[in-house]
Amino acid sequence: MNLILLDPKELTDHHVTLSDRRAEHIRKILRASVGDTLRVGVLGGLLGTGCIREMTGKNVVLAVHLTSEPPPCPPTDLILAVPRPIMLKRVLAQAVSMGVTRIFLINANRVEKSFFSSTLIQNNDFREPLCLGLEQAMDTRMPEISVHPRFRPFVEDFLPEQLSDCLTRLLAHPDGDRTLAQAAGGLREQRALLAIGPEGGWVDFEVEHLKKQGFIPFSLGARILRVDTAVPALLGQLSLLRQLP
Amino acid sequence: MNLILLDPKELTDHHVTLSDRRAEHIRKILRASVGDTLRVGVLGGLLGTGCIREMTGKNVVLAVHLTSEPPPCPPTDLILAVPRPIMLKRVLAQAVSMGVTRIFLINANRVEKSFFSSTLIQNNDFREPLCLGLEQAMDTRMPEISVHPRFRPFVEDFLPEQLSDCLTRLLAHPDGDRTLAQAAGGLREQRALLAIGPEGGWVDFEVEHLKKQGFIPFSLGARILRVDTAVPALLGQLSLLRQLP
Repeated sequence: MNLILLDPKELTDHHVTLSDRRAEHIRKILRASVGDTLRVGVLGGLLGTGCIREMTGKNVVLAVHLTSEPPPCPPTDLILAVPRPIMLKRVLAQAVSMGVTRIFLINANRVEKSFFSSTLIQNNDFREPLCLGLEQAMDTRMPEISVHPRFRPFVEDFLPEQLSDCLTRLLAHPDGDRTLAQAAGGLREQRALLAIGPEGGWVDFEVEHLKKQGFIPFSLGARILRVDTAVPALLGQLSLLRQLP
Repeated sequence: MNLILLDPKELTDHHVTLSDRRAEHIRKILRASVGDTLRVGVLGGLLGTGCIREMTGKNVVLAVHLTSEPPPCPPTDLILAVPRPIMLKRVLAQAVSMGVTRIFLINANRVEKSFFSSTLIQNNDFREPLCLGLEQAMDTRMPEISVHPRFRPFVEDFLPEQLSDCLTRLLAHPDGDRTLAQAAGGLREQRALLAIGPEGGWVDFEVEHLKKQGFIPFSLGARILRVDTAVPALLGQLSLLRQLP
């Protein structure tokens, strides 16, 4: 936790009283005491400092002073075939820490049915891994997450109607004969939509449907990576491509 | 497990009998039966197929036919300040799946002492996470791993004496004013040595010592990433830099 993340509703006259895992973190991990200054951020808002005014019982009272914008978010969105719940939590935190704007969790032929009926997905309860990612990266911007249990309506209806702003569409697929750099071209600040399939890969039907919607298949090489390795590797590559002259 | 990994000593006249987690994987996850063909690889050797000849009790007998080279390994070595054991296992598997050649696990000021006395480190028992990485990426080349409990002798003696072949030396450090692309320059097939610090970062003393040995600091940007996100992101970026014209 590199940042104490606050909900705007928790703030009253520039002060906040914490009593949950954040208070515990301040006491037990940071071993902070009254007078110490911590990094704080307000969800959807600014970063700044929190000066500890009081520590009584379970409570920690901070005087909050907000000063600076969170780090810039690269204009990248992620389509992810749902992995097993423990992996999904990890990958969400990773993707959020790298600054993804929107995450579309979709179904695919090789997604195990049980993954889709996990409590995480069923309850749409992604707040914990998302907050972990923001706290890690010292960001305050919660990405949008949506769940799409049916592949075809997502690709045939949702994509053209809702995601027309994503011009660069990239499909991670071992049979692709291009590298990510070749598929993405001169990316710069253009919005990119990256689709990563399930363990076992996309089936032909899915690849064809995504190609019809303008997705360009690319390969990461002969190595098959786990999703918690592929997601940061590909987001890292996109980030580097955006920096190139 | 995308690959059944075999030790050369297990092979007798092109046959192998498995009874451990690989046999269990073949039975329970792959649900394979006699006559089926699986992807196999021999540690340090070739990839090929294993045809199931017999399945009795816990045993699975494969007839092994080796045909092709494992995927190329990028000439990249990794220096990693030791993270907590559960994270170390994960990062080793990630790094191996991306084809790192050598991994140097070193101490640093902000490495918690207890991490260094974990059974994983004390017993030098990295085989399990390394095999997981190879099985995932369908590779057979086990990287070299060494443990260096003292920072200064590693940097002042070991680095100049043993790692003179690594000309490009890169230091992940938030205060770096270059990007990885700027620090690495025209990398192509040149051997690169990437140093990634502990949670909390390198201390100034360490940065100065590494710079004296030719390490160029670079920053990943304002976002602080966990080591299981930073390692794949940076290895992905190096891999992309090597592909650029």
